[in-house]
Amino acid sequence: MTEIATKLIDKVNTPDDLKHMEISELYSLSDEIRELIIKKVNTTGGHFGPNLGMVEATVALHYVFKSPEDKIVFDVSHQCYPHKILTGRKEGFTNPDMYSKYTGYTAPEESEHDLFKVGHTSTSISLATGLAKARDIIGGKENIIAIIGDGSLTGGEALEGLNNAATLGSNIIVIVNDNDMSIAENQGGICNLLTELRNNNGNVQNNFFKALGFDYYYIQDGHNIESLIETFSKVKDADHPILIHMHTQKGKGFEPAMINKEPFHWILPGTLDHLHETSDSQIDESYESITKDYLLKKVSEGLPIVALNAATPGVFAWDKDFRTKMGSHYVDVGIAEQQAVAMASGIAKRGGKAVLGIMSSFIQRAYDQLSQDLALNNNPATILVFWGGISGADATHLCTFDIPLISNIPNIVYLAPTCKEEYERMLDWSVKQNDYSVAIRVPMAISYSGEIDNTDYSNLNKYKMVEKGEKVAIIALGSFFEKGKEVKNLLADKLGINATLINPKYITGLDKEMLDSLKSSHTIVVTLEDGELDGGFGEKITRFYGNSSMKVLNYGSYKEFTDRISLEDLYNKYHLTPELIVEDIHRTI
Amino acid sequence: MTEIATKLIDKVNTPDDLKHMEISELYSLSDEIRELIIKKVNTTGGHFGPNLGMVEATVALHYVFKSPEDKIVFDVSHQCYPHKILTGRKEGFTNPDMYSKYTGYTAPEESEHDLFKVGHTSTSISLATGLAKARDIIGGKENIIAIIGDGSLTGGEALEGLNNAATLGSNIIVIVNDNDMSIAENQGGICNLLTELRNNNGNVQNNFFKALGFDYYYIQDGHNIESLIETFSKVKDADHPILIHMHTQKGKGFEPAMINKEPFHWILPGTLDHLHETSDSQIDESYESITKDYLLKKVSEGLPIVALNAATPGVFAWDKDFRTKMGSHYVDVGIAEQQAVAMASGIAKRGGKAVLGIMSSFIQRAYDQLSQDLALNNNPATILVFWGGISGADATHLCTFDIPLISNIPNIVYLAPTCKEEYERMLDWSVKQNDYSVAIRVPMAISYSGEIDNTDYSNLNKYKMVEKGEKVAIIALGSFFEKGKEVKNLLADKLGINATLINPKYITGLDKEMLDSLKSSHTIVVTLEDGELDGGFGEKITRFYGNSSMKVLNYGSYKEFTDRISLEDLYNKYHLTPELIVEDIHRTI
Repeated sequence: MTEIATKLIDKVNTPDDLKHMEISELYSLSDEIRELIIKKVNTTGGHFGPNLGMVEATVALHYVFKSPEDKIVFDVSHQCYPHKILTGRKEGFTNPDMYSKYTGYTAPEESEHDLFKVGHTSTSISLATGLAKARDIIGGKENIIAIIGDGSLTGGEALEGLNNAATLGSNIIVIVNDNDMSIAENQGGICNLLTELRNNNGNVQNNFFKALGFDYYYIQDGHNIESLIETFSKVKDADHPILIHMHTQKGKGFEPAMINKEPFHWILPGTLDHLHETSDSQIDESYESITKDYLLKKVSEGLPIVALNAATPGVFAWDKDFRTKMGSHYVDVGIAEQQAVAMASGIAKRGGKAVLGIMSSFIQRAYDQLSQDLALNNNPATILVFWGGISGADATHLCTFDIPLISNIPNIVYLAPTCKEEYERMLDWSVKQNDYSVAIRVPMAISYSGEIDNTDYSNLNKYKMVEKGEKVAIIALGSFFEKGKEVKNLLADKLGINATLINPKYITGLDKEMLDSLKSSHTIVVTLEDGELDGGFGEKITRFYGNSSMKVLNYGSYKEFTDRISLEDLYNKYHLTPELIVEDIHRTI
Repeated sequence: MTEIATKLIDKVNTPDDLKHMEISELYSLSDEIRELIIKKVNTTGGHFGPNLGMVEATVALHYVFKSPEDKIVFDVSHQCYPHKILTGRKEGFTNPDMYSKYTGYTAPEESEHDLFKVGHTSTSISLATGLAKARDIIGGKENIIAIIGDGSLTGGEALEGLNNAATLGSNIIVIVNDNDMSIAENQGGICNLLTELRNNNGNVQNNFFKALGFDYYYIQDGHNIESLIETFSKVKDADHPILIHMHTQKGKGFEPAMINKEPFHWILPGTLDHLHETSDSQIDESYESITKDYLLKKVSEGLPIVALNAATPGVFAWDKDFRTKMGSHYVDVGIAEQQAVAMASGIAKRGGKAVLGIMSSFIQRAYDQLSQDLALNNNPATILVFWGGISGADATHLCTFDIPLISNIPNIVYLAPTCKEEYERMLDWSVKQNDYSVAIRVPMAISYSGEIDNTDYSNLNKYKMVEKGEKVAIIALGSFFEKGKEVKNLLADKLGINATLINPKYITGLDKEMLDSLKSSHTIVVTLEDGELDGGFGEKITRFYGNSSMKVLNYGSYKEFTDRISLEDLYNKYHLTPELIVEDIHRTI
């Protein structure tokens, strides 16, 4: 970092400190911000390309507009690092001891310059229409600015937002940050029309945004501070809806990230230090690799497989090699989870074998489609839910809600494998059957039972009695099956109890026969699930025993948005350690 | 009905029977179909305007295309009556004894000509992309046709579908049935651009659909069978995505419905027999009237109220008079529930008082927005959930899932009033407080406690002990509070038990103190809720008592899609009569 550069960032504590800088200083400041981001993100991990692409635009926004009176809403908000640096939180980037002080997303509790806590995409325009409407009713005059990436624009909420923003009749400024990229490649008609606009400097015969009613502006170089300031100044205080289409480069200023955008969207700590090392070609077996191998094999056998996802192939390691081999059997619908679920249902209806990969936190973007488009029609599509479970994630990306979400919808068979053998059997069953809409909760860490699984999963809701004991029965679901084993062992050690251990396999549906059979020789049933208790798996077991004298203890996470709390702390809070569970059992006996 | 006309419909048993008719005969057939629909719907009630508008288009579709090989997907499918008449189900319209045999929506179990069971909007394009993708993978050659109304086009799923359909690269034919009308007036930029297209015979400078990549066709008169056939024939077997923008008249052929479209969207039995009677101006008090009075009063007092809804003002009786009086304080976002919830959150953030009315069945279209845009941000918007409860509705419009859906999301306070007094107090509290995202489950039928409610609802999760008894405690939620009273009375009569009666008021959150206090003098707790048991209110009570010897019986509906089953049958099945509940209690004691 140069001497001068360091001095510039030192001068900036609020956006006001930018307002008297020369353009040349704004460029230098941008360089400094970029350097801070590169260094910090390479240390902590985090969103890389999206932030590098927004440096100059953020500087120009704060130069022209007056935050927090003027309100800037970031979509997803994983591109807000420059904004955080300029709004009193630069210590989170300059001081390594403070690197973890601020979240990677906008957070109203951190700063009045942040309007919403946001981590799912496609929300900024709709949220901004609300700010604008309230301003108009109350009588305010500020600018309302929604920033949205081209990738986020494909999500239904964003399009609903555009439709409404266009006819708001007052000030709202939508900035489409077009970097020609979603998380993976961009998809669909909107991607094409943005490309055409870019290729024609914003002048085309059929302008999508003008058609909707926006006053449209195009910025060819979203890193040119003069053009940014010129356009932002032009539209500031406009009395009608504006759409600025701004062309930027994802990863700007860090060449490898500009060339190879997808792997630099989000990076692990130290990534930039190992750019020239080739990755170990010996990849360990994982649920991701098993899934890919299975899908490729079935395609080669002639099954009409369609592997679908909504812009997050990286979550399942559906890398370029896999996509190429799958060819037309691979579909990325863009950030459009509703489309993904409905399309899967349509594929299944027509005899195709749809396998939709989705991250637990994002399946909730398609509840109505799961219910109406899929389950109500009983179409035999397969949904693979990845990353489900309690974690130290940001509040915006928790994966604890998929069981309450999916399992209370009629007709869906939701399965929880505990090992490779079960997962392969369940996946194969689901793909080949034609009767049920199926979801499978894919565990994070691989494990092996060493037993061949020959189960016919069409015989619904048959739990597996793993070890028959007495007094206490442990029903340990999916990724918590190993925890169930540990509880069983500790019960033997500590209390001399030979507990029963059950692997329920089915999240949806009770094995009433087995549950009934427990009554004669057990007084306590313990349920373990890796997700929210409220509305989850265990409560249904408890309800089953409601009219009996069986005591039931349910373990899982509480109904809360936790934010970057360590797994250890969460497990202690939720009594999710074998020791705490055995203590509870001891107290209950 | 004329002699000739009768003969034509008699000849049509499958769509093949149309194919050799003269154009003039197709017109006569259309007249017959229209007459059948008018007569039948006026007898049974049902969707009126949408079906009258689709008569000629449906005749032309079946004339040109070959269903069921060619696949026609109807959006919402409340415009499929002509299709049903032409595909072997005319007895449901010609024979009054068969009027209730077929549902008012497409239903694959009725006919191979129906692809999906559909009742929520905006799904047809996405579903059709799935049919098309599977066709391409499997190697089929049929046409895939998605029909969607202009009102449905504003829903996020439809827009996600358009984005994907446009780049499908093979045959898909999207027909936008533009009748210039949603359920109420149409809203937003898309409405405006359709109007511009209509006004210019499909030729405009910025064509939204061309911008997305569609090959665009315009039909100025969607009741002119020659133009319909001409255009459909042109695009049949196209090898690329087609969009046909077809202008029709909602209510075509029945003048009052063409002039005054909103009340004729769906009509009650006998509506057409009483067209010239003015409605009784003395309207009984209802939760709808109370809500309207409250909102108007608060607006007049200067509160920055914004009453929002997503295209269904009729559900809450937000009639033209109310909308006019509310002025800029009223917003209809169109069919766009995600937008509605996010906008409400934005309004609340900016200090406005957002009150969103929504039907229980449709709140599930915005789960992610409830969770991420609203609850995660704790913004103090108010959501009024109407029609929640068990009913004899179609499977597509059940209102039993809102409790599992909303109540397992952290932070939302979901309230269940049992009478006018409580509802008014809760609504007023919700609008005035600034700490919580609140939802209120508005009962259908008005009732009165006769007691002034002075509760401070900020003091969360305090249940109301209505009558303190012993042995059995009945916790009767919201609209089932009256049922709780009946159970209490019958318990006294039949078993001589003086049961405790509790009005929990809060769907979210347990009054642990009160629940604990029941342990000393009660052995059975009974919960009653007007909705799905799985993931619902009662299970949480049961979990609370899991480690105690308290027995708990939960009453509500099962996890299932019921389809037009009478309330009486459902109540018997679910043991939701006081007699059956008291028998269960007797067995459990």
